[in-house]
Formats: sequence, C-alpha cells, structure tokens
Amino acid sequence: MKVRRETGPVAGFRAAGIHAGIKKTARDLAFIVADAPASVAAVFTRSTIVGAPVEVSRRHLALGRSRGVIVNSGCSNVAMGERGIRDARRMAGLAARELGCELEEILVCSTGVIGQPLPLDVLRVGIPKVALALSPDGFGDASEAIRTTDTHAKPARVTLRLDGREVTIQGIAKGSGMIEPNMATMLSFIVTDAAIPSKLLQKMLGRVADATYNRLSVDGEGSTSDTVVLMASGACGGASMRAGSDSARRFEAALHAVCEDLTRQLARDGEGATKLVIVDVAGARNADEADRAVRRIGNSMLVKTAIFGGDPNWGRIMQTIGAERIPWHPEKTRVHVGGVAVFAKGRSAGPAARARAEKALAAEEIRIEVDLGMGRAAARLYTCDLTYEYIRVNAEYTT
Amino acid sequence: MKVRRETGPVAGFRAAGIHAGIKKTARDLAFIVADAPASVAAVFTRSTIVGAPVEVSRRHLALGRSRGVIVNSGCSNVAMGERGIRDARRMAGLAARELGCELEEILVCSTGVIGQPLPLDVLRVGIPKVALALSPDGFGDASEAIRTTDTHAKPARVTLRLDGREVTIQGIAKGSGMIEPNMATMLSFIVTDAAIPSKLLQKMLGRVADATYNRLSVDGEGSTSDTVVLMASGACGGASMRAGSDSARRFEAALHAVCEDLTRQLARDGEGATKLVIVDVAGARNADEADRAVRRIGNSMLVKTAIFGGDPNWGRIMQTIGAERIPWHPEKTRVHVGGVAVFAKGRSAGPAARARAEKALAAEEIRIEVDLGMGRAAARLYTCDLTYEYIRVNAEYTT
Repeated sequence: MKVRRETGPVAGFRAAGIHAGIKKTARDLAFIVADAPASVAAVFTRSTIVGAPVEVSRRHLALGRSRGVIVNSGCSNVAMGERGIRDARRMAGLAARELGCELEEILVCSTGVIGQPLPLDVLRVGIPKVALALSPDGFGDASEAIRTTDTHAKPARVTLRLDGREVTIQGIAKGSGMIEPNMATMLSFIVTDAAIPSKLLQKMLGRVADATYNRLSVDGEGSTSDTVVLMASGACGGASMRAGSDSARRFEAALHAVCEDLTRQLARDGEGATKLVIVDVAGARNADEADRAVRRIGNSMLVKTAIFGGDPNWGRIMQTIGAERIPWHPEKTRVHVGGVAVFAKGRSAGPAARARAEKALAAEEIRIEVDLGMGRAAARLYTCDLTYEYIRVNAEYTT
Repeated sequence: MKVRRETGPVAGFRAAGIHAGIKKTARDLAFIVADAPASVAAVFTRSTIVGAPVEVSRRHLALGRSRGVIVNSGCSNVAMGERGIRDARRMAGLAARELGCELEEILVCSTGVIGQPLPLDVLRVGIPKVALALSPDGFGDASEAIRTTDTHAKPARVTLRLDGREVTIQGIAKGSGMIEPNMATMLSFIVTDAAIPSKLLQKMLGRVADATYNRLSVDGEGSTSDTVVLMASGACGGASMRAGSDSARRFEAALHAVCEDLTRQLARDGEGATKLVIVDVAGARNADEADRAVRRIGNSMLVKTAIFGGDPNWGRIMQTIGAERIPWHPEKTRVHVGGVAVFAKGRSAGPAARARAEKALAAEEIRIEVDLGMGRAAARLYTCDLTYEYIRVNAEYTT
C-alpha cells in the first residue's frame, strides 16, 4: 500500500487552517468539516486527568455522527476547571453556528500552553474567518495550523479501490513530545469518503490506534489531550460497509497504513530526534512481557543516547529487560541492531559485525530487534533517539 | 545524627586500594578485610540477569561469615557465561589465599566493561600487592579504587555510643549511571565494629537498603551487578546485639543515616547531574501508588530537564501521574517545588510564587513534594536532573 506524504481533496470534506491570533504569527486555527453529517470515531488519551476539550469531545462522540472538528494550537485549555469545559463548549458552539448544525455535531481539540484561559474573543472572530476559508484543498493549511513544536507538518494519504470505487483516506497529525503541557500533545485527524457506520468505524480505529499511535513513545509520557478523530462521509457512493466483509478488511489495512505512516512521522520528529527508532521484541512468553520489554527498551535513556551516539550497545538493550524483571536466557537470545546480529548464543558478535552495525546506525531509520527465544509473543514500539536538542527544547523553554 | 563524608579506621578492619593494571593509570583494585571472621550481610541487584560476581557472592553469603570483599573496577565480568563464574571464584580464591581463609569467606565484586574476560594475570600479581597494602587507614584508597564514571569518591561515616561503647559505621559507595554496562554499577561497602549476628545484620541491611539505595534512580535503570555489603567485626567489644533491643534500633538508625547519605551522594553525582532531586509523594491511597508516582515523576525526562532548566513546571510533574494512570483530583492536590507551593486547590500559584520557586531551583538540592490528598501512603525517590552532559557521557562514549 503506497502511502503518500501529501494532502488533497476527499469527497464530502472541506478544511482550512488560518492565523487567528492565538499565536503571534503562525497558523493556529484549523477546521475540518463534513458537508453532511458523517460517521465518526475517536480515541483519546488514557491519562487519568484529561483536558477540557477531551471531556467535551467524548460527550459529543456519543451522538454517533459529526459535522466537523475545530482545533486550535497555542492554548491547550487544560487545568482550567469548570471554566475550561464551558469554554470548550463555546468553541464548539461557535463552529456549529457557522455550519448551522447542533453543538454536539462538533468535536473540539486544543493544544498549547496550559493553565491559561482559551482566548474566546480571538475565536469569536477567528472561527467565522476559518469557516469562510474552508475548501476541498484546505487539508495542507489545516495540517500547518495544528503544529506546535513539530518541525514540519505531517500528512499521509492513500487511495484504494473498494467494490469498483476509488476510496481515499487522508490523515494529518501533530505532536513531538508525548507530553509537553506547554506546547505538545498528539493530535491526528483522518477523513475518508468511504461509507462506514460509526460503530464499525470506532472498532477499526480502536484496533488501528492500538497498533500505531499507542505504540509511539518519544519520552515515555502521554498528554492529557491526545486525540485521534476519524470521519467517513460516504461521498464516494456505494453501500454502507459491513463488519467482517472483504472491503472492511481492506479498508482497515489502508487505515492502518495511513496511521502507521503518521506514527513514523511523529516518532521521527520527536523533540530533538535525529532518527526514527523501531523496537521489535519477539519470542516473549506472553503479550504483557513483550509489551513491557519494547517499552522499557524504547524508553531507556541509555539505549536512546547510544543510538544517538551510533553505538550498537546490546548490553544496554538487554539490561533494560533484566531491570524490567523479565526472565531471559542469554543462550536463547538474539539481538539485531540496524539489521546486524550483535548478540547471539550468549555472546557478543565479533568486531566485524560490530563495525557493520555501527555503519548501519548512520541511517535515519534504525531497527532494534530482540528475539527472546522463549515464546511466541511479539510487540513493537516507535520511538526516537535522545539528543542534546531534546535537553535544549525542554530545559530552556520556560512556561 | 552527624554523618561525615570522610574515611577513617574501624576496629577489626583494614582496607587498601591500588593500581593493579586493569585500567591504564587509576586505582582499580580494592580489598576490604576483617581481621577475624566477621558477621556479614549483603543485598544485590533485582535484575533477572546478574553478573558472575553477584552469583558467586550470593553463594558465599550463605556461609554467614566473611573475611572480606575483593573488588575490581575496569572490567565487570558480566555476560561471560561459565567462564565468568570460574573467573570470579578464582579472584575470590586469590584473595582467600592471602588471608589464609576459605574461598567462601570472600565476597567478590567487579565493575567496568562488559563482555570481556577478567584479566586474571593482572589479578594474580595485583591481589598479593593489594593485600600487602592493607591498613586501618586504607578506606580512602579503597573508595578511590572502586570508582568508574564517578566524579569523586563517596565516603560516609558516623560514630555513636551504644551500651557505653563507641561504635563506628564506615561506608563507601560508587556508581553514577544506574546501568551503564560499560562503566557503572552501584557498589557500596559498609563496615562496623559493633557486634551483630549475621541474621540480624541482614534484616537491618534489607530494611535500610529498601529505604535508601532502592529509592535511588539516576536514569530509571538497574545494573546487573549492584551490590551492597555490610560487615560487622564486633571488635568494639561488648555483647552481641539482639533484635528488638534499643541498641539495635539505634544502630539501625545510624546505618540508615550512613546509607542515606551515600544515596544522596550517588544521586547528586549521577551522570551529568548538576542537582540532587528528592521527590516526595504523600497522600496516596496505597503504598504501590505512592511508589509508582515517585518513580514516574523522578524518572520523567521532562521533569528532569525542567529542573535542569530552572522551571518549576507543575504541569509536567502532575501529568506524569495521570500518565501512570493514578487517579488524582486537582482540587485536593498540592505541589511544592523547592519548598514553594506552585499548585494548590486546582490552580496554579501566582507569578510571585512562581518567581520564588524559580529562585529556589538555583539550589543544588531540590525537593519536589506532591500531596495527592487522597490517603495516607507516602514514598520518596532520590534522583538528579537531566543535562547535556548526560547525553555527552552516554552518546559519545563507545564501547
């Protein structure tokens, strides 16, 4: 499946991204709109404390259909108590008024500084303005307007044929520290012109998000506001998709490809990152141990600095698994770094393999593969290296 | 209890630290010796994979008495399979021969590069040499000889009166990355002239280590070789200490003071650290949540870089607790940074408090205190900030 990192039109949707004035000069307000009520699915942060926009969007999601998502960057509307909820509802209300729809048909997302009130005056002027700018070609501007510390906008697009019709899936995403209450949060918006009932859409998004966005870690943290929204307009025509059908299976694979590509873009653009790092653990005794192992490896500061330093250090990789108290046997374990076997049968590879692994670490995408040789469970994590620039971004920026 | 950061004699013990030739020029071989068989206790790493010296020392500990510990830096003897075990026993055997004691009366520790064989030829010459250098005043040299990336040696010493006699506890420690298979590992050796049976000694050390060394995290990792050894000579005279006695209670408090001071020294000298950070969580619903909360806060890269950057960022602190999926209520929660309340009753403190907190962050020792207001459980973690220098040490050093 060819995923293109670009934006373009999707039948039944329009989008826009403008500078409303929350930030000094950059685009800071995005609006993604379905021409008619669309099926909708969403997944949110698993944090025990969530931002007001997440609370409001969760309630609105219960309606089972949506006309759009209004998103601002520059202010997260987090930790604002009852006022935050009221403001998030007002923001949705302003967007609903532009479309002439119900308040509950609008989802709302905010990302940026915490502990500051949403600038409603700016939004009262900005939301009519962004509504006027809506266009089928507006997804590029929208992908710019949701950025915070991201160094570039993140689009992903696939087209596939389903039942003789061309179907498009267009996604955009932002986020570069998994938690950075001042500036980050992971947001992703995906639209498709396929005809899919909300219930099926939610099931597919849940599965895909678990395998992609929920396997992403820049720094081991999760924001209060992480949100992924998927809307389906059905504008490509044809019958409504049924669970278990061949079309559903193929659509989900395409959705997976879009979300996986966005996940890779997010990991690669992690704060200060110079490399995308994909950690794969196989041969674990059960899914829980496989999951704990990839997260422990991928979140290890020592492993992440070793990758930054170009050091294929299997000792650092394996000792994280010991520290996580997962049983392992050196004789059964194999470790590959950048495709090169650096540890097998209880011993380190020789200097030639080491030299090859060091060379492989010069690439921009690095795989760390650990086979524990104990069972059949496997897991993956998308992450990045840990660099001087991460320290600079997070130590020198002051709220 | 006055803990002095110095070394001096302890009745019944001698020590030495020399340059044997494992490292290029620095001291690399330490020997701590009891003149007669001493009571002994030890705690080891909880990793599921341990170095050969840990395996050998664990077996020897079962004897319940010891004549000494032989320690080298520069080579960790980890991941060497059966050969590693054989070499660690040989190292203990060479030390035992010098003392004319049984092999099992010697504990053995190694720290340094992994995956390389212990240089037995060097040890065959070095161990007789370090035995010749043994002296009551040798603890300072021993504390130098166990260093790896530590920027300075770490001694701690208290004296107290028990039953009319002066008792001394002398500790030394090393370690600056919690895991750094090439160079680090946490080692600590403590001797006392009190008369304490091994069983009681082990109980006291277990409790004290849980409250000190096991509450220490530089980078969230644990080495394969972490070892703490405590020996009691009884040379100060008097009857053997009994469990539950006032003397035992007072001795344990003094032992705690020594180990806590060493723990602070270890955290403060964490790789690249500029500050000691003490994280206290109170008001948790249970001990498990309190423990998870302090570890999540203290290991958070975002919190650690904020401290380095002098930013009293309560948002980063509290969102780690949400990400750990511990329930919390903003209205009940209080957060102090550097002794200044920065968050209370669901809202951020004003700019004046913020300015005071920023000023407090200029200190070398920082406390982060979170009261969740939900229960009575509390926990503490000793850690440090995350700096450019941590990246340099761990990215630029290549095995």
